[in-house]
Amino acid sequence: MKAIILAGGSGSRLWPLSRELYPKQLLKIEEDESLLQSTYERLLNFANPQDIIAITNIKHHSDVKTQLQKICAGNINLAEPAAKNTAPAIASAIEYFKQTSETDDIVIIVPSDHLIKNTKLFTDTVKEGKELAEKGYLVTFGIKPTYPETGYGYVKTNETLCKGYKVEKFVEKPDKETAEKYLKDGNYYWNSGIFMGKISVFLEEFEKYEPVIFNNIKQLNYKTSTNIDFSIYKNMPSISIDYAIMEKSSKIALVSLKSDWNDLGSWQSLYDVKPKDENGNVLQGNVITDNVKNSFIYSQKELVAVSGLEDIILVETEDAIMACNRHNSQDVKILVEKLKAKSSETVQLHKTVFRPWGYYTCLNRGEGYLTKTICVMPKQKLSIQSHNHRSEHWVVLEGKALVVLNDKEYIIEAGGSIDIPLKAKHSLQNPYNDELKIVEVQKGDYISEDDIIRYNDIYGRV
Amino acid sequence: MKAIILAGGSGSRLWPLSRELYPKQLLKIEEDESLLQSTYERLLNFANPQDIIAITNIKHHSDVKTQLQKICAGNINLAEPAAKNTAPAIASAIEYFKQTSETDDIVIIVPSDHLIKNTKLFTDTVKEGKELAEKGYLVTFGIKPTYPETGYGYVKTNETLCKGYKVEKFVEKPDKETAEKYLKDGNYYWNSGIFMGKISVFLEEFEKYEPVIFNNIKQLNYKTSTNIDFSIYKNMPSISIDYAIMEKSSKIALVSLKSDWNDLGSWQSLYDVKPKDENGNVLQGNVITDNVKNSFIYSQKELVAVSGLEDIILVETEDAIMACNRHNSQDVKILVEKLKAKSSETVQLHKTVFRPWGYYTCLNRGEGYLTKTICVMPKQKLSIQSHNHRSEHWVVLEGKALVVLNDKEYIIEAGGSIDIPLKAKHSLQNPYNDELKIVEVQKGDYISEDDIIRYNDIYGRV
Repeated sequence: MKAIILAGGSGSRLWPLSRELYPKQLLKIEEDESLLQSTYERLLNFANPQDIIAITNIKHHSDVKTQLQKICAGNINLAEPAAKNTAPAIASAIEYFKQTSETDDIVIIVPSDHLIKNTKLFTDTVKEGKELAEKGYLVTFGIKPTYPETGYGYVKTNETLCKGYKVEKFVEKPDKETAEKYLKDGNYYWNSGIFMGKISVFLEEFEKYEPVIFNNIKQLNYKTSTNIDFSIYKNMPSISIDYAIMEKSSKIALVSLKSDWNDLGSWQSLYDVKPKDENGNVLQGNVITDNVKNSFIYSQKELVAVSGLEDIILVETEDAIMACNRHNSQDVKILVEKLKAKSSETVQLHKTVFRPWGYYTCLNRGEGYLTKTICVMPKQKLSIQSHNHRSEHWVVLEGKALVVLNDKEYIIEAGGSIDIPLKAKHSLQNPYNDELKIVEVQKGDYISEDDIIRYNDIYGRV
Repeated sequence: MKAIILAGGSGSRLWPLSRELYPKQLLKIEEDESLLQSTYERLLNFANPQDIIAITNIKHHSDVKTQLQKICAGNINLAEPAAKNTAPAIASAIEYFKQTSETDDIVIIVPSDHLIKNTKLFTDTVKEGKELAEKGYLVTFGIKPTYPETGYGYVKTNETLCKGYKVEKFVEKPDKETAEKYLKDGNYYWNSGIFMGKISVFLEEFEKYEPVIFNNIKQLNYKTSTNIDFSIYKNMPSISIDYAIMEKSSKIALVSLKSDWNDLGSWQSLYDVKPKDENGNVLQGNVITDNVKNSFIYSQKELVAVSGLEDIILVETEDAIMACNRHNSQDVKILVEKLKAKSSETVQLHKTVFRPWGYYTCLNRGEGYLTKTICVMPKQKLSIQSHNHRSEHWVVLEGKALVVLNDKEYIIEAGGSIDIPLKAKHSLQNPYNDELKIVEVQKGDYISEDDIIRYNDIYGRV
């Protein structure tokens, strides 16, 4: 079986924990794994690594690759050179399988940012779906509604099939009254965004209903590279798989998902899946409360102290604090829109930015300077680079640094420091077994991440 | 006329903006001046600088002195060597006037952390009080209640005097029902904590009602120094001026305060005095809101985004975020108590700590190291010092540093750096006209503010 992970995302729903450049699927929601990583591992129950594609926007490509490499080397990552919604992404990934595989396999398409804990029941549902897919159906996974949710699309079933149902129609997000009718009716399911079908069937339906997409993917050439050519991709319409195919095709069936499922589409839904204390609170991190009920208080770094409040969500990150009413937590997207309009950096980036080699945190910024702490993981190294507008000064805090400066090597122990002059070729490296932490002071007339010339990079970023 | 400013304080009511080591009176509540500074300036309308004493706990002495020196050089500051409530502080300050002045002047005693905007009306009330004080009364300033407050003590008046009233009794903080009765009665006033009287009358009453205090202050010797001897002060009972004298003396009169008055005893009262926007919100700093009403949102540094909440107070400081219900904002003290029990540093200190020469901010701390930014004001210098357990490394970010290291001088420009070895005698100085900012990286087996040997200090801290 083949699998496609849709690993894009706008990062606005769980802001400020998620960001445009670090969306929900990259977050470690449950313990040690990100949603993307759990999704990948769930698929490994019925697909081999070489048959799983993660497709994502070019913006998230490096983070997606880095996270998946931690689980399994050699996985396949496709980068969309432009954001075009789900249909072009899915079509491009399916075409990859078409070109690189001999057989007309079944492919499952899954979002990367849903929480599913019961893998056994999920796998059981996949097996049922497979039986229908083998008969030529495009199978959608439906969630039996438990309450009249107005934030999801619904799928209406009619006739029963051996393992599921024929689909009568897809319907848009309903109003409250309609949602209540759907719930009562019993034949309506939430649209989970998980689909399966034969490669050939998907391609036939693309050819039939979205010939522009079909004609463009046929021009992609995966034989020599996994790169998706922007000159081809830019011609694709921006359209979801639901609109493009699922709502039009007559071959749609539905299986009811047996496992738990949560799309974590709001802070409220994250609150829902977390264990609560005796006051109905979810308290994470450095938090202290007095007379607080049914609230979600999250601290990433600093102390958060709350008194006499109910039903609130309060989230502290290094550079943004968000508080909202738990019952209207989807309105966080309005805050994010307002911040976007003000071009706030906090919409895009965290203060701590992850890189393939580790991460850095901006400490403070002033006229002509910027200070950072940089953490380089064992056996990792930054690219050989130079800057035209700034000098740098490094002080080692923890571990040991191997510094390459104008082709000479220096070993600097904790407490030691080195100057990196303007335009000098340099690289910070950690060939040792412990994490390396340094303070970097950048000085110059123009200080920006884009003032970088890379000469050599083990992560292919030259 | 003489004046005494009571400049102690526990810093818990406006936490996290105030701290144990940086209480409310030091905060800049209104624009550019702290409450302490405004209090001092208000007194200058009827007292000369050499007749105004600020008395404070030894913990706050340096900050109080620094703030008052900005307004007026050569003001008098007394430091209580132990916390003993208001009576011993007031008695010690009155005794200072007794020993250093020829005349039996009238002295006014004012808290340092109240907000009074109308200085003219305040001065008018002082004049009325003075007439009564000259007749031998101890005058208390009463506030005409506008609602049944349960958080203040009350003063009951009876007989009318030329400019005020005779006081029948002082009463403790009442319950709601009693407070309503007081409000209706019309003869009850809030106890503002502002008092006046002749030096001789205060001392007579101390001798009569608190002879232990009286006998101890007589042993103080201010002729040669303003130091209050701990061996004398430690014998004082810990008691408030209300309990010690005001509730016992038969010479008490009350004048009704004509000006505005707010004790800023809670976040709610701070909200009360701030101008509000059309939604009833007070928004300060980097704040964005959507559908927020009647709330007080304060950001000191990072972005604070709030959605769909009403009647909340949310305060962001560098190292602590506090959220509470506006109607129960006095409960912040419960949070502070809980934090004290956990020995949280955020109760005592800010992340940014003010010093006579400028300030420093801790950036981050790890195993064996600490990084800070240090800002040295123009013409200021840190003491000549050494450390037994840590080396330091300084990188200049802004301005220019004069570094004294083992008796040699080095001038370091922005971008430059210097190592301060373990045990080396050193001093960071800024003899120039611009602020100096550096990053300091401390490395060592024991990193603490108390690892310091001072050899020479222009602020007298050796």
